[in-house]
Amino acid sequence: MNIETAILQVYGPDRKGLVAGISGFLFDHGANILHADEHTDAPAGMFFQRIQFELKGMDIKFEELEPAIRPLARKLNMNIQLLSGRTKKRMAVLTSKSDHCLLDILLRARAGELNADIALVAGNHDIHAGLVGALVIPFHFFPMPPETKAVQEKKLLELLIREKVELVVLARYMQILGRKFIAAFPNRIINIHHSFLPAFSGSRPYQQAYHRGVKLIGATSHYVTEELDAGPIIEQETVRVSHGDSIEDMERKGRDLEKVVLARAVRFHLEDRILVYANKTVVFE
Amino acid sequence: MNIETAILQVYGPDRKGLVAGISGFLFDHGANILHADEHTDAPAGMFFQRIQFELKGMDIKFEELEPAIRPLARKLNMNIQLLSGRTKKRMAVLTSKSDHCLLDILLRARAGELNADIALVAGNHDIHAGLVGALVIPFHFFPMPPETKAVQEKKLLELLIREKVELVVLARYMQILGRKFIAAFPNRIINIHHSFLPAFSGSRPYQQAYHRGVKLIGATSHYVTEELDAGPIIEQETVRVSHGDSIEDMERKGRDLEKVVLARAVRFHLEDRILVYANKTVVFE
Amino acid sequence: MNIETAILQVYGPDRKGLVAGISGFLFDHGANILHADEHTDAPAGMFFQRIQFELKGMDIKFEELEPAIRPLARKLNMNIQLLSGRTKKRMAVLTSKSDHCLLDILLRARAGELNADIALVAGNHDIHAGLVGALVIPFHFFPMPPETKAVQEKKLLELLIREKVELVVLARYMQILGRKFIAAFPNRIINIHHSFLPAFSGSRPYQQAYHRGVKLIGATSHYVTEELDAGPIIEQETVRVSHGDSIEDMERKGRDLEKVVLARAVRFHLEDRILVYANKTVVFE
Amino acid sequence: MNIETAILQVYGPDRKGLVAGISGFLFDHGANILHADEHTDAPAGMFFQRIQFELKGMDIKFEELEPAIRPLARKLNMNIQLLSGRTKKRMAVLTSKSDHCLLDILLRARAGELNADIALVAGNHDIHAGLVGALVIPFHFFPMPPETKAVQEKKLLELLIREKVELVVLARYMQILGRKFIAAFPNRIINIHHSFLPAFSGSRPYQQAYHRGVKLIGATSHYVTEELDAGPIIEQETVRVSHGDSIEDMERKGRDLEKVVLARAVRFHLEDRILVYANKTVVFE
Repeated sequence: MNIETAILQVYGPDRKGLVAGISGFLFDHGANILHADEHTDAPAGMFFQRIQFELKGMDIKFEELEPAIRPLARKLNMNIQLLSGRTKKRMAVLTSKSDHCLLDILLRARAGELNADIALVAGNHDIHAGLVGALVIPFHFFPMPPETKAVQEKKLLELLIREKVELVVLARYMQILGRKFIAAFPNRIINIHHSFLPAFSGSRPYQQAYHRGVKLIGATSHYVTEELDAGPIIEQETVRVSHGDSIEDMERKGRDLEKVVLARAVRFHLEDRILVYANKTVVFE
Repeated sequence: MNIETAILQVYGPDRKGLVAGISGFLFDHGANILHADEHTDAPAGMFFQRIQFELKGMDIKFEELEPAIRPLARKLNMNIQLLSGRTKKRMAVLTSKSDHCLLDILLRARAGELNADIALVAGNHDIHAGLVGALVIPFHFFPMPPETKAVQEKKLLELLIREKVELVVLARYMQILGRKFIAAFPNRIINIHHSFLPAFSGSRPYQQAYHRGVKLIGATSHYVTEELDAGPIIEQETVRVSHGDSIEDMERKGRDLEKVVLARAVRFHLEDRILVYANKTVVFE
Repeated sequence: MNIETAILQVYGPDRKGLVAGISGFLFDHGANILHADEHTDAPAGMFFQRIQFELKGMDIKFEELEPAIRPLARKLNMNIQLLSGRTKKRMAVLTSKSDHCLLDILLRARAGELNADIALVAGNHDIHAGLVGALVIPFHFFPMPPETKAVQEKKLLELLIREKVELVVLARYMQILGRKFIAAFPNRIINIHHSFLPAFSGSRPYQQAYHRGVKLIGATSHYVTEELDAGPIIEQETVRVSHGDSIEDMERKGRDLEKVVLARAVRFHLEDRILVYANKTVVFE
Repeated sequence: MNIETAILQVYGPDRKGLVAGISGFLFDHGANILHADEHTDAPAGMFFQRIQFELKGMDIKFEELEPAIRPLARKLNMNIQLLSGRTKKRMAVLTSKSDHCLLDILLRARAGELNADIALVAGNHDIHAGLVGALVIPFHFFPMPPETKAVQEKKLLELLIREKVELVVLARYMQILGRKFIAAFPNRIINIHHSFLPAFSGSRPYQQAYHRGVKLIGATSHYVTEELDAGPIIEQETVRVSHGDSIEDMERKGRDLEKVVLARAVRFHLEDRILVYANKTVVFE
């Protein structure tokens, strides 16, 4: 889209007049609403909204919008977040040995499919440095031996902060992140787990799936929280397997799932389509 | 849901202020919006909306709502339709020899899954009269030999009108309906075609699929228009087949698709989730 | 198929000459092989085979086949099972309050989709007695209050044995079966669990799924073993859900999955397509 | 797999003794069968088989196998093809402007997922020359303006023959190939068409799909024959779309389908899993 847009995310306790109040405000300022999605979580009594609107023709500049809408949000008891549709988020990708998710993300970004600037790739192995370099993206090597892991992760975190990274994508990154690292990026670290969570959390999920004899395998993208593989799920997908599939076959089939499931989650995040509440996600596709 | 609700469908040329205008009207009358879905068809410049709201607490009765909203609709140049969430639509099911879609619909209605009263079942074969009777639903037998088909279809149409039928479901009904019959129920006759339309329209789609050697078969539910198998598509689904599947296997796999795809379309219609425009459907799931 | 066939299931430790030995035996007796499926589980060193062949033109009667093939099986160290393609298995369906899986199975049997004679339906509630009766199938009511459950289940087991039941289908039967009951039908009790096992085993899986915020829900059919929801998985399927789906929506979507997943498993069993090994199934579709 | 294997493909008119004859031959020479798949097309009266077996322990060398099995094949009236499991096929990829399928194939080959040597990439545009070069694969630029197309295609064909190319993959190559080119590679040119064939053949399938208002879009990989988009289908897949998806959304969703559907077809071909008969494929997955 070549037109300049803004995205308003709204959530809070449900009550009458929310849609009218917010759409009235935008209309009064001359906004043209392009997309509007609402969700009411009736059992929780919560309201969620994402509105994308055109800035052209408004009687107010983007910078003035948030201060202008604050009083209304306070009156309606809503949390709001206002984002420019034009701003690309700065993204870092963390990698270990597998390269399929890493390259998939980098090539999608290169193809213009993701609304992001890839600030850097960092890895605890350096085997992909060459190809990342060929794509003209800085690669940073952070070996993570147990004895220096804490220090290394601290340095990595400092790098990400220095580089103003806003989204961290774990592209089959095989290190468990420390508490501080996670706390620095709340709902801004996306992981891909190669199982249909909550089944087969933890290590070697395809082996677990093989031995249980399931007839489908899955992949799950989720925000990283302190509890391993237990953060808010963003996207999942499954594919059929049979008795004829070896663990290697599952890994091969699974790679295609992982790429698609991670890419969708990253795109949803970059387009501000996700709201998180009660360890669950509202995803306005 | 035990609360009393109403559903407002709105569509027309897109312009600023539509969401604000309509939600403002509802709020002014004290409505609590339960679900709201919007869609803007940018190339066509069209706006579509479905709003479900609670009647309790409003300062106006359901019967007074439509007259009250008419002036606003006229001002906004919108087509509107207001429906009570409580009113069950009167539905007729037409059947031939296959019974899987027929029984599936009847049992879903019996289980409370469909917001409908089944007024009657009519068939050009009477083999299912017994089982329909066991479900305490009137069965009408309308043989359709070529020489009397026109007359019989006229009688069937009169019966449906007399019975105040609002939705006609063709549950693998194997007769091509006449022009007048179709005209009497615009966007209110739902057919299930046993292929992934537009592939394999017309007769014997599984045979066509078998001979083409496709690796998926499909089913399509659509509103019936004068052009055969060319009406607005409501829902579609596919399932894998392989070289090992005979035509009979395809028919068996296909039956499961047909049931689900037809049932979804019927449910969407009964819950007023469908808007039709330019021979396409907007389905607010 | 109107031709008379037999099915030979073979499994045992893998070694050279198995396919040649068995197909040679059948050819020497004039059999025409219609379908042959093999599977080698390389890590386990096990061989599995299912051969369906035509009896017409053989120089040996069906009754004489098994004694004739025994010496070869012993020589090859294979377990064999020989079944007539014509014999319908006697099947019992157990039911509680939900009727969707029950009716689905009964109607498939009525439509000739299942190679079974339905000996009886038994329920710990009697609400479906009428409709089962309308389908001309005996219904037996076995209330299961805790204090008499053991006695009642014993009586139910006696009935099944007396009725020569060969397959027990739990169509959303909500009672946990006792040890003796399960032992009486090894790999001959099929359950449908309304989740993607091993996720959300135990009770109320849709509630569990809702609260975890998954983006797919599933259904799993499996043979019943002593450990709850942990028997060999026969078939699984998933369907997308979103933040917009309530628990009731999940139940509705799930019912369609449950029906299809259970029906497939039952059909596979009735057509002798399943071999069980190491708590896993080999399913020759 | 590190063991040395061979693959035998067999097809011809069905008759008794085929499985016994072929497996007996292999056993007599000491082969260990790893996988065996059979298919009988009953209406056509045709038999198809793929056997993968271990060469170690056989009393005959791979080179001697084909001459040794010829007399048996003649006796059984079977067509046979014997292939070494070790030999990588030489593959060429043709490209135009889109790069997603091209890069997907190249990266899968690089990851060892495809049993192929990529001989070269050729394109009627040279925009991907750089990235292909970075992957250390020769890139050949063949502009195809209408006036020199015939000559250019002849040169391309000569290059492919000179390079001993055995499989030509059209990775969204937007030129219609000439008769001679196609004839030079019978059942050895694989195309990806971005629709669920036979629906939306020809140009701009996503536009066609958008205007018809389908609820699923698809991708189809097939062998190229003289009739456009009408060759034997190897693999297909679909994904859901809704009224909310623009043509651009369909293209984005479609790219993920195209990559997976093309890659599967290429892998099946490279592993000699495909037999072609009556413009249809038997694919032994």
